[in-house]
Amino acid sequence: DLPFVLISGPCQIESRDHALFMADALKTAAAQAGVPFVFKSSFDKANRTSVSGRRGVGIDAGLAILAEVKGALGCPVLTDVHEASQIEAAAQAVDILQIPAFLCRQTDLLVAAGRTGAVINVKKGQFLAPWDMAAVAQKVASTGNERILLTERGASFGYNTLVSDMRALPVMAQTGYPVVFDATHSVQQPGGLGSASGGQRAFAPVLARSAVAAGVAAVFAEAHDDPDNAPSDGPVMLPLAWMGPMLERLKAIDAVVKG
Amino acid sequence: DLPFVLISGPCQIESRDHALFMADALKTAAAQAGVPFVFKSSFDKANRTSVSGRRGVGIDAGLAILAEVKGALGCPVLTDVHEASQIEAAAQAVDILQIPAFLCRQTDLLVAAGRTGAVINVKKGQFLAPWDMAAVAQKVASTGNERILLTERGASFGYNTLVSDMRALPVMAQTGYPVVFDATHSVQQPGGLGSASGGQRAFAPVLARSAVAAGVAAVFAEAHDDPDNAPSDGPVMLPLAWMGPMLERLKAIDAVVKG
Amino acid sequence: DLPFVLISGPCQIESRDHALFMADALKTAAAQAGVPFVFKSSFDKANRTSVSGRRGVGIDAGLAILAEVKGALGCPVLTDVHEASQIEAAAQAVDILQIPAFLCRQTDLLVAAGRTGAVINVKKGQFLAPWDMAAVAQKVASTGNERILLTERGASFGYNTLVSDMRALPVMAQTGYPVVFDATHSVQQPGGLGSASGGQRAFAPVLARSAVAAGVAAVFAEAHDDPDNAPSDGPVMLPLAWMGPMLERLKAIDAVVKG
Amino acid sequence: DLPFVLISGPCQIESRDHALFMADALKTAAAQAGVPFVFKSSFDKANRTSVSGRRGVGIDAGLAILAEVKGALGCPVLTDVHEASQIEAAAQAVDILQIPAFLCRQTDLLVAAGRTGAVINVKKGQFLAPWDMAAVAQKVASTGNERILLTERGASFGYNTLVSDMRALPVMAQTGYPVVFDATHSVQQPGGLGSASGGQRAFAPVLARSAVAAGVAAVFAEAHDDPDNAPSDGPVMLPLAWMGPMLERLKAIDAVVKG
Repeated sequence: DLPFVLISGPCQIESRDHALFMADALKTAAAQAGVPFVFKSSFDKANRTSVSGRRGVGIDAGLAILAEVKGALGCPVLTDVHEASQIEAAAQAVDILQIPAFLCRQTDLLVAAGRTGAVINVKKGQFLAPWDMAAVAQKVASTGNERILLTERGASFGYNTLVSDMRALPVMAQTGYPVVFDATHSVQQPGGLGSASGGQRAFAPVLARSAVAAGVAAVFAEAHDDPDNAPSDGPVMLPLAWMGPMLERLKAIDAVVKG
Repeated sequence: DLPFVLISGPCQIESRDHALFMADALKTAAAQAGVPFVFKSSFDKANRTSVSGRRGVGIDAGLAILAEVKGALGCPVLTDVHEASQIEAAAQAVDILQIPAFLCRQTDLLVAAGRTGAVINVKKGQFLAPWDMAAVAQKVASTGNERILLTERGASFGYNTLVSDMRALPVMAQTGYPVVFDATHSVQQPGGLGSASGGQRAFAPVLARSAVAAGVAAVFAEAHDDPDNAPSDGPVMLPLAWMGPMLERLKAIDAVVKG
Repeated sequence: DLPFVLISGPCQIESRDHALFMADALKTAAAQAGVPFVFKSSFDKANRTSVSGRRGVGIDAGLAILAEVKGALGCPVLTDVHEASQIEAAAQAVDILQIPAFLCRQTDLLVAAGRTGAVINVKKGQFLAPWDMAAVAQKVASTGNERILLTERGASFGYNTLVSDMRALPVMAQTGYPVVFDATHSVQQPGGLGSASGGQRAFAPVLARSAVAAGVAAVFAEAHDDPDNAPSDGPVMLPLAWMGPMLERLKAIDAVVKG
Repeated sequence: DLPFVLISGPCQIESRDHALFMADALKTAAAQAGVPFVFKSSFDKANRTSVSGRRGVGIDAGLAILAEVKGALGCPVLTDVHEASQIEAAAQAVDILQIPAFLCRQTDLLVAAGRTGAVINVKKGQFLAPWDMAAVAQKVASTGNERILLTERGASFGYNTLVSDMRALPVMAQTGYPVVFDATHSVQQPGGLGSASGGQRAFAPVLARSAVAAGVAAVFAEAHDDPDNAPSDGPVMLPLAWMGPMLERLKAIDAVVKG
């Protein structure tokens, strides 16, 4: 029952300078609230709603930037991988490899990730029940790597809507692996804008509070200095200014629940 | 942003002695946690899964017992009504009239309840969106009675399952009326036992914490001294012993959120 | 495996002349397609989205009109009841008493309806699984009245949306009671217009074809000579001109399935 | 409005002899009903529920068998691909490349498939609305390849359950691409057996009838000579003996709808 960790960063790596700026700003906000911090950003957005959505800086440039962030700020770094061929390079640059929700049942990807020995964060598919994640985690654990995180990021609820079932958090915790709540993707409205996904940023801090009250090991919440102009996930990312006040409340709730 | 209130009691009135015993035990537990208390119990279970489910003591005996509880313990009392003909008598015995979720769109029932001037607690139908409750509340308010409470008790999620969308709480609060979270009916598995509804009592305190962290005016949670042998809603009612520890945590979370 | 029956009419009784006109037009269309016809209309819309939605002509005028339609056209007549006090009068005027979906678990209403000996059509609640309807039918059958119809009219699917699960039709048929598919209410978007329910009329004939292909005893589809100006359910009612072509296709599919 | 096509075969290629036997049996049944036939089988099951689920014969052996089936029986052949590296080889062996539902948003996979010029069948993710498939198809079409099929295979409906929304068929048809209904995966109960997916084979012919009545270009239905002992998807695959009677009814319904 360690205090919760914040996993945050901009949805995609936009540039070296932006990544370093964001990591520094978030690390400072987390430190002020007394919350351990992991930096997250993606080098490729492989499943955008539209073929013309901006994809990111690519794997080589992206991993170099992440390695620099890690060195400069001294914080652990997380990124997501989308096919087995990316895994070896990614595992050398970052601390935590993340398996995207749509890919959470792809056996080869999970096994290849597990074999690196890195921490593996698997996002629960929007189409899965929380108890289905035990078999997903077992795919990683079959490699001997038990450094696994399981992330709730919403379940399909009718069309273009997700719902966050807070019961999923204790259910997934029964696996024995730490459970993460992804507050920003949980408020996505998938495909809701026609050629892009919409979202309701304003509910992310509400759901984060609910999740911490239910009990989690970490809160995942993407953030941006100008979310409305971000190249992806703008409607759900949190403005930097929201982070400090949100973390203070989460910290206090976490203390009540784990105290 | 007043501190949250507890609405609790056994699902149905089983006898005068049992109602008085439960009200006293719950009032004591609430007082120890510093939580205001409203006693809830039903004189008739009008929509049991099975025609042979036990219905309760009936309206005359039930209202007399509720009036006695109110007098003996000095706490406000809530009961639910199922047709317009019950409303006048009920309003004379209790402080809060509750409209069951299945009946939350029945205009005549809402209007008749509103006309009594009593506080009206409308449970959101499992088939409604939270924003649909504005039109429901307006049916009551059309009588000039603005003493309205709106209760979240789960939304249909596939078959025989409910899900608690914590976003519903701030959405309903936008009406300006106080919002209640019903922690025990939200963990029902409607019809899940074939000739009865099942449920998962263990998740009720988890969801109650999540709801209080999201922000509510009251928590509704039915309780019983022997839930596994209760005539209705046994699978979801909380044992008396759970109440004290749960309220203490809820109280602390409520203070964080409203502080 | 008798050929399917059409249950149709305007959502609410607007006037004596309109009811007679609609019944005549629909009876003619059904006869041309060789489909037995039951006239349906409501004397009261008791659960409108908004308190200001038009309610109808009332029980006395409404039942008189329905009795006149029955006499003039020689077709069976169906109407819905909303509380036990309406049942005796309604059973004297019409052949089939319908229990609305929201009320399908109200034991007293089901039992009072069953006792009349009339045919009882129970609509499945949007919050129920198809197998839950066995216990609902049993409430009616407990009176000795086995003249029961069970109607599918959509299941809650996220917010403001229904989905028609065609598996529900054979599941409900396992009760032994005839199963009806309600094609027009199934395309409602409940509450979707804010102060009214929306709908997608264009999908009603599609779903009716799907349901007849799955196998049903009757198709329920409300119709109107000017649906866009109807006082209720306008977005889902079928224009009169659609009825003939739809029935011809349904008749042919029904013959394939039951042949 | 061409008559519907059958896409069928065993879930996975079990051996050369089994694939040839099944293709021959299914081709014969389809020919007897006058239905064009496409053989489907997988060389790798890349996303089994459990890490120990049988995966199949592998890409080299599998594609060789599919090419032999195609040559021996003279029918088009379909198989699914899971990463870009498989696509070139697969496109040389088969006529139709299928994108699995979980992967239907992976831009690189869709684009690489499109570039082969083969027919591309994209299964709609269980987490997508039917209108979201326009942007998915556009990813393939961005390569200049407009030979696209879109397949409905069920939408998430609560946990461990799918529902088939027949409205999805005409909605997807608005893209202008032919629409396929997958009758056997639509009756899966994903994860429903704990370490495997369950299913309700008995409903597959019902849903196939409903889909053909709604209007489709093809019906996808996996079949097996001994489904209860098949290495994957046993609970949903159709016994060979069911195929003939099902196709006859579907053929007659298709004629009504397209006549």
